[in-house]
Amino acid sequence: MSRLRNLETLVSLAKRRGFVFQSSEIYGGLGSVWDYGPLGVELKKNLADRWWRSMVQARDNVEGLESAILMHPRVWEASGHVAGFTDPLVDCRTCKARFRADQLAGASCPRKPSKTAGEAEPCDLTEPRQFNLMFKTFMGAVEEDAAVVYLRPETAQGSYVNFLNVMQSSRQRVPFGIAQVGKAFRNEITPGNFIFRTREFEQMEMQFFVRPGEDDEWFAYWREERLRWHHELGIAPDRLRFHPHGPDELAHYAKQAVDIEYEFPFGWQEYEGIHNRTDFDLTRHQEFSGKKVEYRDPQSGDRFVPYVVETALGLGRLLLTVLVDAYREEEVEGESRVVLGLHPSVAPIKAGIFPLVKKDGMPEYARRIQDDLRNRFQVFYDEGGSIGRRYRRQDEAGTPLAVTVDGQTLEDQTVTVRDRDTLVQERVAANRLVEFISERVEA
Amino acid sequence: MSRLRNLETLVSLAKRRGFVFQSSEIYGGLGSVWDYGPLGVELKKNLADRWWRSMVQARDNVEGLESAILMHPRVWEASGHVAGFTDPLVDCRTCKARFRADQLAGASCPRKPSKTAGEAEPCDLTEPRQFNLMFKTFMGAVEEDAAVVYLRPETAQGSYVNFLNVMQSSRQRVPFGIAQVGKAFRNEITPGNFIFRTREFEQMEMQFFVRPGEDDEWFAYWREERLRWHHELGIAPDRLRFHPHGPDELAHYAKQAVDIEYEFPFGWQEYEGIHNRTDFDLTRHQEFSGKKVEYRDPQSGDRFVPYVVETALGLGRLLLTVLVDAYREEEVEGESRVVLGLHPSVAPIKAGIFPLVKKDGMPEYARRIQDDLRNRFQVFYDEGGSIGRRYRRQDEAGTPLAVTVDGQTLEDQTVTVRDRDTLVQERVAANRLVEFISERVEA
Repeated sequence: MSRLRNLETLVSLAKRRGFVFQSSEIYGGLGSVWDYGPLGVELKKNLADRWWRSMVQARDNVEGLESAILMHPRVWEASGHVAGFTDPLVDCRTCKARFRADQLAGASCPRKPSKTAGEAEPCDLTEPRQFNLMFKTFMGAVEEDAAVVYLRPETAQGSYVNFLNVMQSSRQRVPFGIAQVGKAFRNEITPGNFIFRTREFEQMEMQFFVRPGEDDEWFAYWREERLRWHHELGIAPDRLRFHPHGPDELAHYAKQAVDIEYEFPFGWQEYEGIHNRTDFDLTRHQEFSGKKVEYRDPQSGDRFVPYVVETALGLGRLLLTVLVDAYREEEVEGESRVVLGLHPSVAPIKAGIFPLVKKDGMPEYARRIQDDLRNRFQVFYDEGGSIGRRYRRQDEAGTPLAVTVDGQTLEDQTVTVRDRDTLVQERVAANRLVEFISERVEA
Repeated sequence: MSRLRNLETLVSLAKRRGFVFQSSEIYGGLGSVWDYGPLGVELKKNLADRWWRSMVQARDNVEGLESAILMHPRVWEASGHVAGFTDPLVDCRTCKARFRADQLAGASCPRKPSKTAGEAEPCDLTEPRQFNLMFKTFMGAVEEDAAVVYLRPETAQGSYVNFLNVMQSSRQRVPFGIAQVGKAFRNEITPGNFIFRTREFEQMEMQFFVRPGEDDEWFAYWREERLRWHHELGIAPDRLRFHPHGPDELAHYAKQAVDIEYEFPFGWQEYEGIHNRTDFDLTRHQEFSGKKVEYRDPQSGDRFVPYVVETALGLGRLLLTVLVDAYREEEVEGESRVVLGLHPSVAPIKAGIFPLVKKDGMPEYARRIQDDLRNRFQVFYDEGGSIGRRYRRQDEAGTPLAVTVDGQTLEDQTVTVRDRDTLVQERVAANRLVEFISERVEA
């Protein structure tokens, strides 16, 4: 058995099978923007739903929210993004290329690709200048009169400005959290590695509001909770590790931060972040809006601005990790196959449904099974090609179960159900299929 | 019993109970942008899931897609949006207000609100000028070098440019459809009516690709399918009607169009649109990209550019319709109550769980029930206040069932389950609750 060796293999599978396409491909694509195809959109929905169930539905003390992408421009002054969300860029006067000043050592000169831009000889570099990473746009009919607004670079601020509204409408008390899933945008200079770093992306963030002094304890709690979540999703534990931020790595608002890193084919990289953002954001919003944003303890009566512990995971990055981690090539039944060993709960298709042959009433029987199952699960009917070939197609799509209608089915109303990983085939009564599949894919 | 009489009542309920908040409210709000609170986000997810199950999961011939908000700028030249997606605006030289030239009769002059801007006397109007409704932004580090890109004003174009990728990866044949749910943006001059018309909104669109000549038949099919969907969701049939577009109302790309209209407190308004967009979009993309975008029939071998029948529904508008339609005030049990009679499948919370009193082990028993149910359903535990008051809170949130743990529960392990609409209370064995609730809320 072998793992994924390079990203290109996955990019190619993702396109061929309909997980991920390049955006606007017929126009030559749009830099670092991607579309999710029929299988990709199901996988993405299932991952987001699994996160939501564990973070919101399963907890009394976390509420859901969906704030808009467009927000009042003062939000980004308060958060520090207008002033500080910048990358230092340098231009090369010789080759006209643009580089991040802090990544020169890794950037190669377009004229002499064997040399890095950091080596003085091939490149004639300007002094670094600061470029803001927020996309800006104009709201209102006429550009000159319109308000400049930004596409949010993170969902977190939407949770902060709604802190009081959420707390009051849901009758929560500190400590409690606000979770959301939504798009964010960063005008990155050096995006790349397929869907690892993209300009348009989707975040799954949770802001947990706590009493100052209890923040270290909650930070430790969420760090463990989040690692456990990835383990339960079946991500290989030896390819996950914590990377605590040193003092020089901490963001301006952070007291403490840890990344959960995954070992991608391109190295160990940040996968999810857990941050102690202190009372920085709420205090700033209080200051910039002129509105009190604080909590009054109903027992003791004392008032304070809560501290925030944040968990931040990119949905596209999670999807990439899941695909990378699930990919394997192996020999089975005398043939080589590519399998995505996806956790059944997130697999795009839960079961393939196959008539063994295209005659003797088997297709009709299989169609009836499809009709029974499809209200509850995403299933896929396939009667084309040999049964082995149909198994391989579903292996490659990550489908955990394959239901086959054969000669015996017509006699005793049982079907075979094949397990993607063990290859074991069991005979199951057709009228017990919903229950059988449900037990295997809804955990 | 009385229905919703004015939108303000709903806006107030929506804020108080956490369905919808004004965006960036602590900063005075952002014009016509709204956030979804804890109950709103659940309702929205349930509506989108119900649409997805019926449009994608339940059909062999519709595939899902999620294309990005940012697309190659040539897409919008091809689609006609750069040249033609405009509103005619006029300015008043006296009062400095701006109006849509085609809506002057309904706009009142800010200086003399009793007069409309269309009446010549109070206003001194400029000639109409065309303003494009697309939000534009800049991709790349430096504005002057960056590419101008647009926030998409519709998801449809993402389905068109992915037509071949989706068809090939999913092995579909014409006729088949591509469905997606996603954000779109329009810099509207006159948004309003709460979440009815907003600048940032979410669409649920399906593009169905057919052989030319079969388009009228498919148009009729989808018109009926979509109306049936709204009926099944429980929208009052007498508040729904078809409005076929006359020749003067048709968009430039449309051969035929019909709106499904709903009777809102502010009048009959478009709710969902079904459009025969012909081969306009695919042909234009073929022309602008220089790539063949056509279908080859595998039986006959003939090639053609498919016609497209589109169904287009706004998710925020659907959510508003569902709230308006579900709202009622009535007298029950000698008290007045506000109820949201939401279809159980989309209700944010499926069951309230209440200990009758806060003693005798009832809270502990009720907590165990909550733990059993929450893996499967959104449930809400409440031990605060009288049982009548707790019922009313859930009525107002649209919760279809209320589970109460009382003295008898501790003796015979049964609970009462109250139905929101009929007020009938049934005794149900605690260990049968998952099954009981599932039968009532998963239809």
